[in-house]
Formats: sequence, C-alpha cells, structure tokens
Amino acid sequence: MRARTRRHSDLAIALLILVAGGSSAAQDRPRARDLGVPFDGRPGALNAITDVRGVEVGHSTIILGQGPLVRGEGPVRTGVTAVLPRGKVSDEPVFAAWFSLNGNGEMTGTTWMEDSGLLEGPLMITNTHSVGVVRDAVIAWRLRKAGPDHEGFAWSLPVVAETWDGYLNDTNGFHVKEAHVFEALDRSSGGRVVEGNVGGGTGMICHEFKGGIGTASRLVDTGPGSYRLGVIVQANYGLRRQLRIAGAPVGAEITEGAVWREEQGSIIIVIATDAPLLPHQLKRVARRASLGLARMGSTSGNGSGDIFIAFSTANAGAAGSRGLAGAQVLSNDLLDPLFEAAVQATEEAIVNALVAAETMTGRDGRRVAALPHDRLREVLKKYNRLTEK
Amino acid sequence: MRARTRRHSDLAIALLILVAGGSSAAQDRPRARDLGVPFDGRPGALNAITDVRGVEVGHSTIILGQGPLVRGEGPVRTGVTAVLPRGKVSDEPVFAAWFSLNGNGEMTGTTWMEDSGLLEGPLMITNTHSVGVVRDAVIAWRLRKAGPDHEGFAWSLPVVAETWDGYLNDTNGFHVKEAHVFEALDRSSGGRVVEGNVGGGTGMICHEFKGGIGTASRLVDTGPGSYRLGVIVQANYGLRRQLRIAGAPVGAEITEGAVWREEQGSIIIVIATDAPLLPHQLKRVARRASLGLARMGSTSGNGSGDIFIAFSTANAGAAGSRGLAGAQVLSNDLLDPLFEAAVQATEEAIVNALVAAETMTGRDGRRVAALPHDRLREVLKKYNRLTEK
Amino acid sequence: MRARTRRHSDLAIALLILVAGGSSAAQDRPRARDLGVPFDGRPGALNAITDVRGVEVGHSTIILGQGPLVRGEGPVRTGVTAVLPRGKVSDEPVFAAWFSLNGNGEMTGTTWMEDSGLLEGPLMITNTHSVGVVRDAVIAWRLRKAGPDHEGFAWSLPVVAETWDGYLNDTNGFHVKEAHVFEALDRSSGGRVVEGNVGGGTGMICHEFKGGIGTASRLVDTGPGSYRLGVIVQANYGLRRQLRIAGAPVGAEITEGAVWREEQGSIIIVIATDAPLLPHQLKRVARRASLGLARMGSTSGNGSGDIFIAFSTANAGAAGSRGLAGAQVLSNDLLDPLFEAAVQATEEAIVNALVAAETMTGRDGRRVAALPHDRLREVLKKYNRLTEK
Amino acid sequence: MRARTRRHSDLAIALLILVAGGSSAAQDRPRARDLGVPFDGRPGALNAITDVRGVEVGHSTIILGQGPLVRGEGPVRTGVTAVLPRGKVSDEPVFAAWFSLNGNGEMTGTTWMEDSGLLEGPLMITNTHSVGVVRDAVIAWRLRKAGPDHEGFAWSLPVVAETWDGYLNDTNGFHVKEAHVFEALDRSSGGRVVEGNVGGGTGMICHEFKGGIGTASRLVDTGPGSYRLGVIVQANYGLRRQLRIAGAPVGAEITEGAVWREEQGSIIIVIATDAPLLPHQLKRVARRASLGLARMGSTSGNGSGDIFIAFSTANAGAAGSRGLAGAQVLSNDLLDPLFEAAVQATEEAIVNALVAAETMTGRDGRRVAALPHDRLREVLKKYNRLTEK
Repeated sequence: MRARTRRHSDLAIALLILVAGGSSAAQDRPRARDLGVPFDGRPGALNAITDVRGVEVGHSTIILGQGPLVRGEGPVRTGVTAVLPRGKVSDEPVFAAWFSLNGNGEMTGTTWMEDSGLLEGPLMITNTHSVGVVRDAVIAWRLRKAGPDHEGFAWSLPVVAETWDGYLNDTNGFHVKEAHVFEALDRSSGGRVVEGNVGGGTGMICHEFKGGIGTASRLVDTGPGSYRLGVIVQANYGLRRQLRIAGAPVGAEITEGAVWREEQGSIIIVIATDAPLLPHQLKRVARRASLGLARMGSTSGNGSGDIFIAFSTANAGAAGSRGLAGAQVLSNDLLDPLFEAAVQATEEAIVNALVAAETMTGRDGRRVAALPHDRLREVLKKYNRLTEK
Repeated sequence: MRARTRRHSDLAIALLILVAGGSSAAQDRPRARDLGVPFDGRPGALNAITDVRGVEVGHSTIILGQGPLVRGEGPVRTGVTAVLPRGKVSDEPVFAAWFSLNGNGEMTGTTWMEDSGLLEGPLMITNTHSVGVVRDAVIAWRLRKAGPDHEGFAWSLPVVAETWDGYLNDTNGFHVKEAHVFEALDRSSGGRVVEGNVGGGTGMICHEFKGGIGTASRLVDTGPGSYRLGVIVQANYGLRRQLRIAGAPVGAEITEGAVWREEQGSIIIVIATDAPLLPHQLKRVARRASLGLARMGSTSGNGSGDIFIAFSTANAGAAGSRGLAGAQVLSNDLLDPLFEAAVQATEEAIVNALVAAETMTGRDGRRVAALPHDRLREVLKKYNRLTEK
Repeated sequence: MRARTRRHSDLAIALLILVAGGSSAAQDRPRARDLGVPFDGRPGALNAITDVRGVEVGHSTIILGQGPLVRGEGPVRTGVTAVLPRGKVSDEPVFAAWFSLNGNGEMTGTTWMEDSGLLEGPLMITNTHSVGVVRDAVIAWRLRKAGPDHEGFAWSLPVVAETWDGYLNDTNGFHVKEAHVFEALDRSSGGRVVEGNVGGGTGMICHEFKGGIGTASRLVDTGPGSYRLGVIVQANYGLRRQLRIAGAPVGAEITEGAVWREEQGSIIIVIATDAPLLPHQLKRVARRASLGLARMGSTSGNGSGDIFIAFSTANAGAAGSRGLAGAQVLSNDLLDPLFEAAVQATEEAIVNALVAAETMTGRDGRRVAALPHDRLREVLKKYNRLTEK
Repeated sequence: MRARTRRHSDLAIALLILVAGGSSAAQDRPRARDLGVPFDGRPGALNAITDVRGVEVGHSTIILGQGPLVRGEGPVRTGVTAVLPRGKVSDEPVFAAWFSLNGNGEMTGTTWMEDSGLLEGPLMITNTHSVGVVRDAVIAWRLRKAGPDHEGFAWSLPVVAETWDGYLNDTNGFHVKEAHVFEALDRSSGGRVVEGNVGGGTGMICHEFKGGIGTASRLVDTGPGSYRLGVIVQANYGLRRQLRIAGAPVGAEITEGAVWREEQGSIIIVIATDAPLLPHQLKRVARRASLGLARMGSTSGNGSGDIFIAFSTANAGAAGSRGLAGAQVLSNDLLDPLFEAAVQATEEAIVNALVAAETMTGRDGRRVAALPHDRLREVLKKYNRLTEK
C-alpha cells in the first residue's frame, strides 16, 4: 500500500543501516595498485585520507527496493559520507579553502570558509536533492553533542557537498533523513576507508562505469618537515570516451555500456594535509585537484559540479583561537611537493573509486557496470603501462 | 505534555499562517519618506522591488508562543520570504550574479550562479538554521509544479539565504517546515510588499532596533532606455552606535535599548532590474549594495553575513535558451545611473525596514524596540536633514 | 625648437625635483580635523600611514610648463608616490591582499599577491600611462640595491597602481622617467606625510575639486593587543553632486566649478597595519575601504578604478621565510575594531586629500579649484556637523 | 667601450629585427602531428589560433651576442609577441575573461577585463622584466595610430603577460624597447603562425627542453553553429620528469639535459574563439586551459605564472557598443564541445611549441636542447601511442 510505504519507518531505516554497514565492512576488492595501475609518489600506510592523523570518515548507505521508480518510495540508492577533520573528539576548526573548477553543483558553507579561512565542523557529501536535510541535521547533531545545559553553537554554517544520483536513485524521493546523517557522523572513524558504492557515493557513476567513493594519500618531504596529504573523492563525472588511466586511453578501448551522451555528473574532491598551510595556500592546493582530475581525461563539462576543498589539521591552536595565537607557516617556496602530492593522490583516489565500485542495478532496472578489472589490465598492458608484481 | 507539543501539528501551522498572513496584510505604518527622511533619486510607483515588472514577493511568518525558551517548542519568531524573479508563471531563469561583502552567512546555489550567470528559480530568505529545509522544499515545490507525469527538473540547486534570529527566536528548534516554504512561494505576488516583521525578517534586529524586511526602488534613465531597479533587504545587522540615517548620527543620538556589544547579525540584499545587464555587469551592481549599506554606518563586522544578489528580468529568451538566442546588451559606459540607483535603493530599503518593523518580544521575554519615529524626526531635524512635507 | 624640448633633459628633471621637493616640504595647510570636520575613532600620533612603524612614504612631483598641450612637451602635472612597507632598510615581504571595488584601473602584481599572500617590495602609485615605466624602474632600483656582484632578484613582479590625470597633465607625453621612480623610492621616509598635490597625486581631481594624496590613521585595541592602522589614498574619483563630508551634503551645497558630467577618475587606497593579520584577513580589511569611500558619497562609477590593498608589517619572519617559521595570528573574532578603523581612516584620508590639495592650473589653462575651507565649514555648520575647537 | 654598447643603437635594433624576422619566416620544422603524436578532435586549416578569423599574431625576436653575461649588454635572447583579436584594422574590443591557475606571473589589465568583460586592444607577451616597457609602448602605438589631430584614447589599460627567460637571456638588461613592440604589432598578420624560438618565446624553456611559442586549433560543432577555437601559448614551465605527451611518460624516458631542480617557469595560454560567448562563459573556457596543461604532466609549481585568457571575436557590435546593442548568446548547455576543444588545443599547442623550438645557447654559454624528435617517436612507440602515417 502506497500510503504506508511512502516514507520509510524508523525501523526500516535502522535495518537498512545495519545491512549497509555490514556490506560496507566487507570490502575485499583489490585497489588500483593491486591491479598494476602505475602511480607516481609514495602513498601513506593506508593510502587513504585517514593517513592524515585525526581525520575520520563515516558512511551511511541507503539501498532499498528495486523495479520501477515511484517517487518517494524508491528504489533508493543513495547515502551520506562524513569527513571529520579532527574526528569526533574535537570541534576545533581547521584552516581550509575551496575551489570550483565547474560550478554546476553545491557546496554550502563556502562563503564563510572563504572569509574565515576555516572549516568549522564536518564536511558532508550526499546527493544533490538531500543537501538541505543534511545541512540542518549537522546543526542538530552539533547541538545534541553540546549537551542539554548548553545552548550550543550560536550559529552554524555547515559545509555540505553533493553529486547527482538520479540515474539509479529515486533522488526526488528525499530518502536521506536526519538519522542517516547522525549515523555517518557517529560511525566515523580513522583507519581504513571503505570505497565504492558506499555513503554519498552509493548511486554514483564515473566515466559511465559505476563510481562512488575513492581515497588515496601521499607522503611528502618538504625539507623542514615531512607531511601527509590525503584525498577522498565522490566520483560521479565524466564521459566514457574521455577516460584515461595512467595515460592509456581506457575509455576508447572499453566502449560497452555507455550510459549517456553528455556529462551529467560531478565530482567532489576533499584534500587533507597535516602540513601547516594557511588558508591562501590551501586554496592553491585545492586548485590542484583540477590537474589530477584532468589526468583522467575530464574536460569538466557544463553539467558537472567539480568542487574541491582542502584543509590542514595543523595549527589547531591558531585555527580555533579566540585571541592571539601562534601558528607555523610553511614558505611558499616549499609548496611544490604538496602540489604534486595533491595531483597524484586525486588521480589515484579516482581510479580507486572506479576499481572499488561494483555493478549496481537501480531504479527502473537501470544497470551501471563496474569497470572490469581484467579489461583494465589488458588495456594498460597494450599501452605498456601495466605494473607487473 | 511536552512530547505532544514538541513539534507543531500541521493544524497549528495552518492556523499560524492565517494569523501571520492576516497581520502582514494590515501594514499601515508610514514609510521612511513619509517621516521626512531625505533620499536622492526617483522611486518607482510602489517604491518596491515589485516595480520591476514580473517580480513577485511572498512571505510566510511564524509567530508562536512566549516566555522561556524550550528548544523545539518556542517561542517562535521566524519565517520565510520568497522572491520570484519572473513570478509564479515562469520557470525561466534570469541573468544573475552575487557578491559577498562579509561572508559570515549562507547563500546556497551561488557556485552555479557564478558559472552559469543564472538564477534558476526563486530566491528564498529565512533564518540561519532553516536554510536546509527551505532548500529542499524549493525542489519539492518545483517538482510538484511540474505535474504528475513529468519527472520535473533533473536537478535543482536552489538559492537560499539567511540571517540569524536566535536572539528572539527558538532558532535551534527548526520551526520552519516545508509548508511554510510552499506558502511563501504560493502566496507571492506583485504589488505592494509588506515590510518589517514578516517572512524571513520576522525575528530580525537591525542596528539594535527591530529590523526585518524593507524594500525600495528607483527609476533610471540611461539614454537608450529607461529602466527600473528595485531592492529588497532582510536587515539584521549593525551596532546602534554606528547607525547613520541620511548622514545624521542617529545611533549616537538614540542610545537606549542597545542589545549587544559586537555585531551578531547580517543583511541579505536583493537587487532586481529590468535593464538588460549581463551577468558580469550584474556582479558590479551587486557589489554596489555595499555602498548603500555603508551609508547607514555599517562597517560589516566579522559576525555579519552581508551577501548580495542582483538579477535582470530582461533577456528572458537568452537566459532561458537551450540553443542560440539574441540578447540586448547595455554598454558599460551607461551603467552609472544603475550603480547609483542600486546604492540609493539599498539605503532606502534598509531605512524602510527600520521604520516598518514594530517592537517585538520573543524568547525569554527579550524585547527589541522599534526605531521610534518621533525621535528619528527629532534627530534629522537637529542635523537639518528633515524633509518637511 | 621643438626637437630640443621634446623630452626634458636630465638637468630639467633634477631642477624640477628640487622645486617639487621644496614645495612639498612646506606643507602648512590645516588638515581636516583642524577645520572642524568630525571623525570617529582615535588617530595615531601623526594621523598618517607612517604611524604604522616601518612604513615609509616618498614622493616625486613633476610640475613643468603651462599653456596649450603639446604632446610630449607638457604641461606636466604628475608624479610618483612610493609606499615602502618596511622602509628602505628591508626587502622582506609583508603579508598582503587586495580588492577591486571597480576595476577600471591598473594595479600590477596582484595576481602573485593573491596566490603568495605577499607584497614583495614597494607599492607605487602614478598616472595611468606611466605604470609601465614605473614598474620596470622598480626592478632596476632593486637590482641596483642588490650590488654589483650579485644578480639580485631572479624575478620581480612589482606592484604599481594608478589614477588618470589627463585633464590637467600631458599624460600621453610619458613624462615619468626612471629617475623619478628612484627619487620617490630613495626619498621615502617615516614621519609626517606630505599631502595634496604631490607625487602620484599631483594632477588628480576628487569630486571635481582638486584632489591628490591624503592619509590618516587609527589606534585600535583588540583585547590581546593594541595596534595601529594607517591609510594613504590617491584620490581622483567622484562627482561633485555626490560629495558628502561627515554626512553633510557638501557637493549639493558647493556646486561651482564642476569639471565633468560623468565619473572620470579613480581612487587607490592603501591600508597598513601592524596587527598580525594573515592574507585572507587582510583581504577583508582591504574590502572595507569600500565602506569608507561610500561615506563620501561615491557610487563607484564605471570609469573609476577603485582598487585597494592592505598589508601587515607584523610577522616579518613568517612572511619572509624560506622554510618553516612561526607567526602570530589574531582570531577573526577580534577583527571588528580593525574593520572599523579601516573604514574610518579611509574616510578621513580622503577628506585630508581634499583639504590639503591646492588649486591647480594645468594643460590648456584648465583650472581645478581646491575645496574652499571656509565654505566647507559653513556647510558643516549648517548641518550641525562642525566640531568647534 | 662599455658606455657605447650599453644600450643598443636604433640601427642595431633595426638590423636585429631584420635578422629575426628573416629567421622566423623560415620555419620548416615538422609539427607535432607530423611526428605522429596522436591528438583528439579536428583541427582547423592552419591548426593555429589564426583559424579564428580576424586574429593576427606578430613577433619581434631579439637575439644578440654570446658569451658571459654583462648586464645591459647581453647576451640577449628575448622578444615580444602580439595577439590582435580583430587584427590591425579594428580597435573594437572583444568579450574576454582570464584565469590564474598559479599566479607567479604578471598579466596587466586583468582588473578591468574582469569588470568590463572586455579585452580592449592587443594582448602582448614578453619576458618578465619587460612588461612595463611593453605596456606603455602599446599606449604609444595606439596614440600613434589615432593620428595627429586626435587625442586618441582617454586612457588605456593594456594587457601584457610574461614568462621569465633569465636562464638564457640578460633579462635584467631590459633589452626590449618600444621599437620591438611596434614591430610585433605592425608585423602582425593572419595565416601561418611561426612557432618555437620567436617573439616572447625566444628564450623560453619548457619541461627543461627548449620551449617558446606554440599554437593549435579545433573545429567545433555545437548544434546551432559551427565554430573555431584556437590557442597560442608561450611555454616556459615544467620539470623534465613530469613531462607526458599523449599519456606517455616522455620525461621519465628522456632524462638527459635537465636544467634545474624546481620549477622556474610559467606558461601563458591565450584562447580565441568565434563562438558567441559572454564574458562569464569565456572565464569557464579560460579555466579549461588548466586541464590541457595538466595532460602534459604539469602540477603548476609555486614558481610558475600559469595565467590564461580567453576571448571571443563574435558580437563585435555588442562588445564595442556605447549604447544598447544586440548580441548572440550560446546556451550553457552547448558549451561542452568548446570546453573539450580548449583542453585539446591547449595540449597540442604546448607539444607544438616543444616540437618547433630549436636548441639554443644563451648567456654564459648555457645551452638548452630541443626535444629530440626521434627520441620522442621512440617513446611514443614504446607506449603504443605513435600514429604512423
């Protein structure tokens, strides 16, 4: 009966969360390097954004129903991903900056980030039509944390980004609820990051293969200090024919299963580092995400929301100060290794998203195939770009 | 019982809307000119943003309860204001641009406005913590309009701005609901615009007097054409001591009732014109709102979200085209009268907000007094700035 | 003979410099405060940008000939003004940022300032058509300073701004030479700053009165520290009818001697502070110059190049570091007094320029009258804005 | 005697011009496509920016002396390149926009381009320390053109960009003179564009091979119209190890002759199209140059001035109007082929610069080798990326 099922009951949501959480934990697919894709630079221990100490990532994945689309009922293939710069233990802001390569998307909170130089609170990624509910839920979550006797934050301007999953998901059904936002935030953790069809990336499509969440990292030596730089992406952009991996024309070689004729998607790229960068330097780092994306063959189509953010976990005292505080500043002359790391880790995070995502069937029986690992290896070999183990 | 009243029933909301709508319609207070405040330039027939043909404004005002704050229960002093560039009859976009004088605020949708040069759909203004619900509700409203057989818009990136009303309102109670958003949109109309404690402006405070919604307009002659330029503001910014009206130091003269020590507020300024301006020209117009605001004595404090938008209702064909279309373009050499009009109308709209707003008592018995009209006239007279009728 | 006089001989330039320098030193005209113009805030000891310790200002003034314009021969009414953030003793950069309220002007070097967060070297102001010669001469000056055995700077991207003096000056005659640039730089000093018809301001016009160089400063208390903020302007903007001083409609009262019908000019505003601000914070300070300018009645016409720069002399170690260095950072929450000081000092610096400038006759016998001090006092008195001593 | 030779006599300059012009005309080296480098998209007839009708390019090349550096005497390896959007026959502006990927460089005139949406006059490219002389000379050239009875332009804000050639050239000797600027402008023409060691590109270095000027174009079909998009670059950026051509790791394969350890250079990228784009759309096109550059392996180092400009020759009436004029506007929905063309033509123009440039010996006997064509073909073959004819 339609009336009864129109909105998921809380129980259904809870069950859903269990299932999604369970499947997320079971990632055992290889990553891009395991397949022999060559990359430059030296990754961190996890090859993930969580190599930057303190950074936590949490997902809430919502997969429900199948068959024809009934708006408000499903099928649902969506979710929320949370990135907490200093984890759940700290509300202290981080120095941050953002950049829009192509603005057909949303990232709330950027106007204040631009002026304050700060990211205050978590960074959330979801689907296009759920940005609002996620935004307000972040405020509710922060108020809840602040305890009953405390008014909490006078005001919050949460940062919520999105990409569009309407090809597979009932995106106009508004299935993301406050509970999913709380789940993504509460479950966030350091350590290994689940990639592929999870969280905000659940229903995403990349170069007309199944896309989603991907991550990577680099270790950087700048002279006065060694730093970590990590990237997480929600990859939902690109045409098949444009896809290049490690310089090989993969999209021209693997042509089957193309989904559309013009770019429908977007990509959100989040860069974290523990290098002591100031906001104006982080803006330059954020801009480099463009160059990593370009290596994949993207020309950043009109319909794409290619929006990037970079933050530094260093200088906690200065970023969170209400008075006068000391900060460490890295000379501009030493930024090149960080720029290079941002480009490399962006490139690898995207390939990781493609490699991790599994074939998905969504609304109206629409099916988006995963990038076939064997075919990828064949193409890399053809172009002498396969790294043999 | 607390549980029962924690969220307003739909009935309560409906009643509320009736009451608020009723009181809004009863505006018979004088406007700034009626009090003898001198302004430069020539206003339109209504001296309102609706002098720009096609523009519609709608309010949903939520006033409920009194006494101590109980989060989620009230007291409630908030609302939503909708500005529809081409009215309810047209979904066609308008050329638009935005500017942030100080970014401690939110205006969603600006990243796409920047790249597209378009405002696609209505512009909404509400309180800081209700931006999300309003944003998603605009999508729902557009989907509803598109009819049952039609999937509606592939994706929407609504433009929603805000100022903070937490001094008078239970802003952390999230009292704005989808129904309020629909009401503001459905009730929008041309003609006279209700000012003061209405819509998004309900609980706002300006220069430590009661603030809210204000509007004004100018007729502009540029040589090849005569145009209209209108402004609407949600005024919630400023310290008392800084207030200047028509150059007179009103804030230094009327010192009683000061509310706070440092700037807590913000101002959203919306500029409409029927002059055929392109997006890069509209950005220059939006920037001029700063200069009108400055005439009031503002120094745009760190805590203020002073965010402005300008749009042109001309060139409907070009703004909404999916192909190649013709547009009229006004030479940069002819922009000066429009720049001047933007400054003048911004200044007058703010004074109109101050003059229209009535004393309000909100949460915890907090009271914010209206600007006393007689005292204002006395100060203007003292500084030889009173226009006698 | 025309050929002989077409370009000034070096001797003529030397003589000129002596004369100009001599007259400059003899400034004994009152400043705005001396005339009873009321201002808010507390000025520094000199009420000049040089109240910020280390900042030096130097002028080279070129006044030559009279009568009809012969391009390349004169009459000449122009010059160069140099602002050295750390004086001649130090080449260390300062943290800096810029803002363009209206871009019909030039400030070279801003692209690198934006990314580096630094002003490396002096800031120069001259006339529109001499920006190039001044720019390259700054490089030559820096190379000369670096000594014969040293290659000097690998590359320099000097910051040179301008306003247009073609109404009084043979601006197409390219009369500014390398020697003038060296003179302005070499003569720079702390202490009292000569205002009015000097340096880059020599031939400038403001609100259709004679304009030029003006300066002012404020002392700022932010809690953890007391700071100085100083402003210097090259004022060449505005229509007569728009002029307001201290809120009084001076331009509407003193109407004689209007020069043109639409805005022809520009204003360069330079803000210095010793508060430890980072580049993204300095950008916010620079933007406040708009608000000081607006208090004068400006609507920033299409023809105006209203370009502003703000720098901080604090954090010399971090700004000049080639490695990892410590910096002091002031919380955003403490910026309001600095924002207010920037607005106030901008306003006062402009009025000081108007008050200091003397009536000048230039090319083709064109005469631009100074703002008459007695008339100004009368108008202020009429509007009850005269501060009696 | 040093004094005599310190500045080149006019005769020397004239001779120099003859020689340089002669050698420029003799370009018979193959272009990238001739060597079998694969590119996507369809080039125009000339595969040059001059495929966009009306666009003219002119070079002035200055090569003089050899041996040890004596500042002011040489050796000289520099020049000026002029790009005239509507050729010498028209002073009408074009709609234009710019973008800075990394701002360690100069492009004058951008502040006005940003606000006006116009490029008024030619676009010049030279070496870093000659930007000033070139800028002022453009004004002089425009004044000269306007004739003796005419005052010419009230003011000009020329657009002059640069990259740094100090490794090979006596860049601190200021060898570019007004005469060279006039030459580049007067000699500009449509048709074939000389590439490599010419004009502003004379002394440039790219990925540690000899660099310089390169060009390419694409034909674009957008549905309602077919358009041309052309690119010209002055390529002076990049590390050897980062160089990729057509996805092949050319820099990792051809390692000999590396010049430096960190990025010293820059790249100026100029994009022309006859598609009727508005300024805000051209900004998006300019931004795409980043993506073409990224395909070459660049990570846009801190020392690089990677500054891009895009202009449209369409809508001459609207761009140059002083009143109200009609314009054609292409929907955002149709931009993708132009974005793709901008990326592709940027990539090919850079490879063309590398392929055209010849080995050069400059100051202090420093030698920079050209990219060896045979080695390039070998590497492409190794990675299965060689297009056999």
